[in-house]
Amino acid sequence: MTATVIGIDLGGTNVKGALVTHEGQVIDEARVPTDAAEGAERVVGRMAEVCRRLGLAAEAADHEVLGLGVGAPGPLDSSLGVVVRCPNLPGWDHFPLAERLRARTGLAVSIENDANAAAVAEAWCGAGAGRRHVVTITLGTGVGSGVIVDGALLKGRGFGGELGHMIVREGGRLCGCGARGCLEAYASASAVARRAAETLGEGGPAVRRSVLAGTVPTCESVFRAAAEGDDLALRVVNDTARYLAAGLASVVNIFHPEVVVLTGGMIRAGEDLVLGPTRKYLAHLALRECLEGVQIMLSPLQDRAGVLGAAAVGFAGVGRSVLAGR
Amino acid sequence: MTATVIGIDLGGTNVKGALVTHEGQVIDEARVPTDAAEGAERVVGRMAEVCRRLGLAAEAADHEVLGLGVGAPGPLDSSLGVVVRCPNLPGWDHFPLAERLRARTGLAVSIENDANAAAVAEAWCGAGAGRRHVVTITLGTGVGSGVIVDGALLKGRGFGGELGHMIVREGGRLCGCGARGCLEAYASASAVARRAAETLGEGGPAVRRSVLAGTVPTCESVFRAAAEGDDLALRVVNDTARYLAAGLASVVNIFHPEVVVLTGGMIRAGEDLVLGPTRKYLAHLALRECLEGVQIMLSPLQDRAGVLGAAAVGFAGVGRSVLAGR
Repeated sequence: MTATVIGIDLGGTNVKGALVTHEGQVIDEARVPTDAAEGAERVVGRMAEVCRRLGLAAEAADHEVLGLGVGAPGPLDSSLGVVVRCPNLPGWDHFPLAERLRARTGLAVSIENDANAAAVAEAWCGAGAGRRHVVTITLGTGVGSGVIVDGALLKGRGFGGELGHMIVREGGRLCGCGARGCLEAYASASAVARRAAETLGEGGPAVRRSVLAGTVPTCESVFRAAAEGDDLALRVVNDTARYLAAGLASVVNIFHPEVVVLTGGMIRAGEDLVLGPTRKYLAHLALRECLEGVQIMLSPLQDRAGVLGAAAVGFAGVGRSVLAGR
Repeated sequence: MTATVIGIDLGGTNVKGALVTHEGQVIDEARVPTDAAEGAERVVGRMAEVCRRLGLAAEAADHEVLGLGVGAPGPLDSSLGVVVRCPNLPGWDHFPLAERLRARTGLAVSIENDANAAAVAEAWCGAGAGRRHVVTITLGTGVGSGVIVDGALLKGRGFGGELGHMIVREGGRLCGCGARGCLEAYASASAVARRAAETLGEGGPAVRRSVLAGTVPTCESVFRAAAEGDDLALRVVNDTARYLAAGLASVVNIFHPEVVVLTGGMIRAGEDLVLGPTRKYLAHLALRECLEGVQIMLSPLQDRAGVLGAAAVGFAGVGRSVLAGR
């Protein structure tokens, strides 16, 4: 009998689940729409349904299910199993997710912030596998992150590790969090689209020539236009690289990590265009002794980071942590 | 027989030593000038002389000396006991400090970066005593820092914890490290003096009225002028608070600590003028859930942080760590 856990990645669009071994092998997967508008209890019902399906798969393969780990958006209290605030899922503030899932599934349940869970996945079986100092930054709609310090997740009193809200430009662009100049306000997919739209609004000669003129730019269309040599798009992409490099310089100087893992839609859209310039800027910004030997890598886990991270959280919850620990 | 260690703070001007108990009690102190120009070996000789004096004091009090801890400037390899690079002490690059001191004193020797040592001191018997998540920032000629995460020093692969080189303004002022926009380029004592001098150079009407006009401003004179209501000085002081708050917002969002300890000449000169505005700006910049309950405090240890931190390093080196650990 192989020991497994179920990992569930609770997203705004889909609930994704996987049955995973302690070696990070995915035995089976299941997914249902989140339909968040129906309220928290209905979503929990669908999460339980995912567990039921994966439980049957475990039974068929003669695997034992030790527990359930969940990665959920927003700040949460993992020791109490309570979601504190959930920007994308209305009605989830202070929701006792672990308790509700335990009642529905009979499983031991552990929950963690999804960006933290993804970071654990990278240090377990992704770009940082086997390393003790790994920083993962997810450049998507927002900028999520998780930091592994000495083989354990950095949380401080519970909500730490928020690299997306490092301030890289004092007094700069307004961020969704209410502050000005956060990394998220420059290096997220939505920030790329918004900056392109603003530049289009300026209406200079470069704009009239831009293939983006007359469109509502998306992160993808900006990177496509940049790849075609569009001036305006290239300016936005280059700015993105500069701000990302400023954020990464702070990360490297603060954590002196072995690996920095980049993932999420923004970096996938602009891999070739962003990563090269970012590395070039970074070389001028980070302390020499901190940057030496740091690997800046793209995640090999891609869409599976969420469920793998959730599974890692599940294993930790039943006393079988997949990380080296301290 | 009480167990003690000798802590030595190796500074650019003075070598300060103290005989310290495991409870953080200072039994005796000694100090000699560094005279760095005479070369590393002569400085080591004077450090050994400080040890000899403190050793005699230990003998007289019937205390046992378990070992020697040293806080030294610049990046160093504490596992090898080697100073890597020492900006203020010429000729110390790659100097095997621990080995040389061991040969001279016969003591077990551990070395650590001085800013890290000061941070350990704060978490041991300073503003963060008994806490597990403590960030210490020294605003002096430069901006030094040390971070205690889960009761242990954050170092990553060895050189981490450099909060002075967080980039708070992408493309901003040139820092001594070669990058642009580091916290150190805005919130150190020298940055305050330099910005005041530049503003004087601009020569507008406010400058003609400034009490600083016609002087070479120092950090102290800027804060003194600000306290007297001088417009130009107040502008520099207010800018300093804004940049410091931006840096602290990142610190709070990344580490979600219990305590942030501020120390060093800059903050002592401008305590009343800087701390209030900094707290006010910080409230608008840090994530609500991360800032709640964080204490921003001034160090109660002041000039003793260096020798106490060095002593803490000495205790850790002989397997008697003064911190909670992980």
